[in-house]
Amino acid sequence: MIPKLEIFSQGEEIVTGQTVDTNAAWLSQQAVPLGFMVTRHTAVGDKLDDLVVLLREIASRAECCLCTGGLGPTSDDLTSEAVAKAFDLPLVFDPIAFEQIQQFFNQRQQPMPAANRKQAMLPKGAERLDNTLGTAPGFALWHQNCWLVFLPGVPSEMRQLFSEKVKPTLNQSFNLQPHTLVSIKTFGLGESLIQQRLEEITLPETVQLGFRASQHDVQTKLLFPPNFDSSARHALVTKLRNQLGEAVFAIDTTSEATGDLVTTLDQLMTRAGQTLAVVETISQGLLAGLCTGSVWLLESTYQQSLPRLLKKLGITESTENLSRLAQTIAFTTAEASGADYVLVQLYDGSFQALQDKTQATRLHTVLFTKGQCYCLEHTVVGIAKHKQHRAALLAVDMLRRYLQFGRL
Amino acid sequence: MIPKLEIFSQGEEIVTGQTVDTNAAWLSQQAVPLGFMVTRHTAVGDKLDDLVVLLREIASRAECCLCTGGLGPTSDDLTSEAVAKAFDLPLVFDPIAFEQIQQFFNQRQQPMPAANRKQAMLPKGAERLDNTLGTAPGFALWHQNCWLVFLPGVPSEMRQLFSEKVKPTLNQSFNLQPHTLVSIKTFGLGESLIQQRLEEITLPETVQLGFRASQHDVQTKLLFPPNFDSSARHALVTKLRNQLGEAVFAIDTTSEATGDLVTTLDQLMTRAGQTLAVVETISQGLLAGLCTGSVWLLESTYQQSLPRLLKKLGITESTENLSRLAQTIAFTTAEASGADYVLVQLYDGSFQALQDKTQATRLHTVLFTKGQCYCLEHTVVGIAKHKQHRAALLAVDMLRRYLQFGRL
Repeated sequence: MIPKLEIFSQGEEIVTGQTVDTNAAWLSQQAVPLGFMVTRHTAVGDKLDDLVVLLREIASRAECCLCTGGLGPTSDDLTSEAVAKAFDLPLVFDPIAFEQIQQFFNQRQQPMPAANRKQAMLPKGAERLDNTLGTAPGFALWHQNCWLVFLPGVPSEMRQLFSEKVKPTLNQSFNLQPHTLVSIKTFGLGESLIQQRLEEITLPETVQLGFRASQHDVQTKLLFPPNFDSSARHALVTKLRNQLGEAVFAIDTTSEATGDLVTTLDQLMTRAGQTLAVVETISQGLLAGLCTGSVWLLESTYQQSLPRLLKKLGITESTENLSRLAQTIAFTTAEASGADYVLVQLYDGSFQALQDKTQATRLHTVLFTKGQCYCLEHTVVGIAKHKQHRAALLAVDMLRRYLQFGRL
Repeated sequence: MIPKLEIFSQGEEIVTGQTVDTNAAWLSQQAVPLGFMVTRHTAVGDKLDDLVVLLREIASRAECCLCTGGLGPTSDDLTSEAVAKAFDLPLVFDPIAFEQIQQFFNQRQQPMPAANRKQAMLPKGAERLDNTLGTAPGFALWHQNCWLVFLPGVPSEMRQLFSEKVKPTLNQSFNLQPHTLVSIKTFGLGESLIQQRLEEITLPETVQLGFRASQHDVQTKLLFPPNFDSSARHALVTKLRNQLGEAVFAIDTTSEATGDLVTTLDQLMTRAGQTLAVVETISQGLLAGLCTGSVWLLESTYQQSLPRLLKKLGITESTENLSRLAQTIAFTTAEASGADYVLVQLYDGSFQALQDKTQATRLHTVLFTKGQCYCLEHTVVGIAKHKQHRAALLAVDMLRRYLQFGRL
């Protein structure tokens, strides 16, 4: 049986939205590969009754609970009190905890405020978790079949305490079988098209399949159970990868995160030691902006007016065939810049038509390298910014595909 | 009675920690000033039984539930099914939703995958919430005393749907006593400097003061209780605004969000009916990229190599005094582009030195307009991307200050 784990975040600043709860995501990222099944995240504010109810709920549902926040010295820090009330345990003064808190202030040559004494009161029978970064010690205790761990809410303190004091001991309390998570990251295929392509592959029942789509990529996620044969895992991932073809730009595993589409492009360009010049129209600088920080981006030009762009480049060709024209621009820019790659993107219609969200916009993207021109056409839709962002990503992806597969 | 509201996020990617749930914080930020008491955030994965249990729990505890995620076309998108099961409602085919989904694919000239038909199946009696950005319509329904609203998990779609379709109607269902939240948004002053400047102003005890700092701005937030006298509120806000001077670029109220620094610039430029050309070095296209979508951005140029940039512009001046050189570049660019404003930004040191996070970088930013040159110098620090981003924002802010206050 995979032990169930819940994460519980306490704090008025979380339920009111002043703070985004990054602790819960971080703890999940730690817990899943260890072999827990994380079933719920819950956040409540600083209300004693809400805390008591929630602690009892979680203890009856899960085998492990990781709780953050509410350990501070002020009156709205109620965790110990809530634990005492929920599980009917008296609060007991812990002299070692008290000494550590005093030491924290002594080291800073500050007097200890009276309020901090409260942080040395722990529920009876709880195991103290010494916090070397702040004044609040954490603690942990069993209630029936649930191991509840209480950590400070300050992310740096929470992370250190978890890594040093909690993570190494979880194996003693639980029979954990670590899982492996693989994410196949693609650009250019929609979520439903991916699903369609993968339909013919039969997954073992023990492997969980999931998808995550954003503007930047679609991730196909496979969660493998412990003891899943690693060569069978590799074979399956390869099968899926092949099915998704050149849309795959990177694969994440539990032990290795690869970054986004531009990170992949950056690695490919850096490895190739080559340079890029871009000529933008629809994306107004966004394409260069995506590559910001890259030494291989030599130059970029954006012109709202196409005739003015042509005049600047000394091109007299007519503007009727945009794909042809983009090729001429690419050739001229390659000559002038000396860049190894040139990306040029033109679009049908006016800048005003681009602003109209009911109108689709047709793109003509050209990649020029080593005397060769490659041409792709795409349609982008939606509000202007969305079309522009998509256009910039499509151009980035065109270069990525060429570098990764040597063709388009 | 203040109505209780809970936020419910669905997705395996959230409970496993692959995604930080920013939707919950964003929705809380919306709900609190409207007059709700947000009592809980809960996230669960893609398991039908967990979803059903949680939906029933929330409907019995809260008067309003905002739920995100699980509306997609794939097999792990289970929200409609869970709602149907939890509240004993059949799923009904919605022909209008289906037509919208088909249209989404038609516009992209793609065939609609069979899987997407599922998104047109809504629980009986639910009110459809049309989604103009994606394929997934949202929906909302009453269950006993709870109004449950279901929104897509993609943040951009969720935010638009909430703002356009949900927020305006909440007043009809609930007796809300809105608090007033005022955010004074500044650029160019640090959080502690702001605090220092505001120290001499005494706030009424009922008004809550808070700060939020990001790379883009520092927000000074004032939360006024219901029935706080509006002219006293205006007087207090004006006092704070004056204390913060020209760093203030916008003021948000509960009823009016003003957007970011670039939004303010966009309004000022659009109102003035004038145009801009930019010449970037350090920011590699990021400055133009920030203004993407703006009709007033006529052209942008980025060159990694300063000698090459000068050659391209036909400038023979020596490169020793960068502020002078930036003025010459601005003048040349104004002549060639015909733009009303020209921003030019140069920096000390090489592109390689910029990559070194231990080295600060000195910026020379010039604004040219109506035959006049304005020059500012700044120092930026940190990793390369941070320096580049800051440089772009400083240039944007320079133009914003000129347009807003007529001077620098």
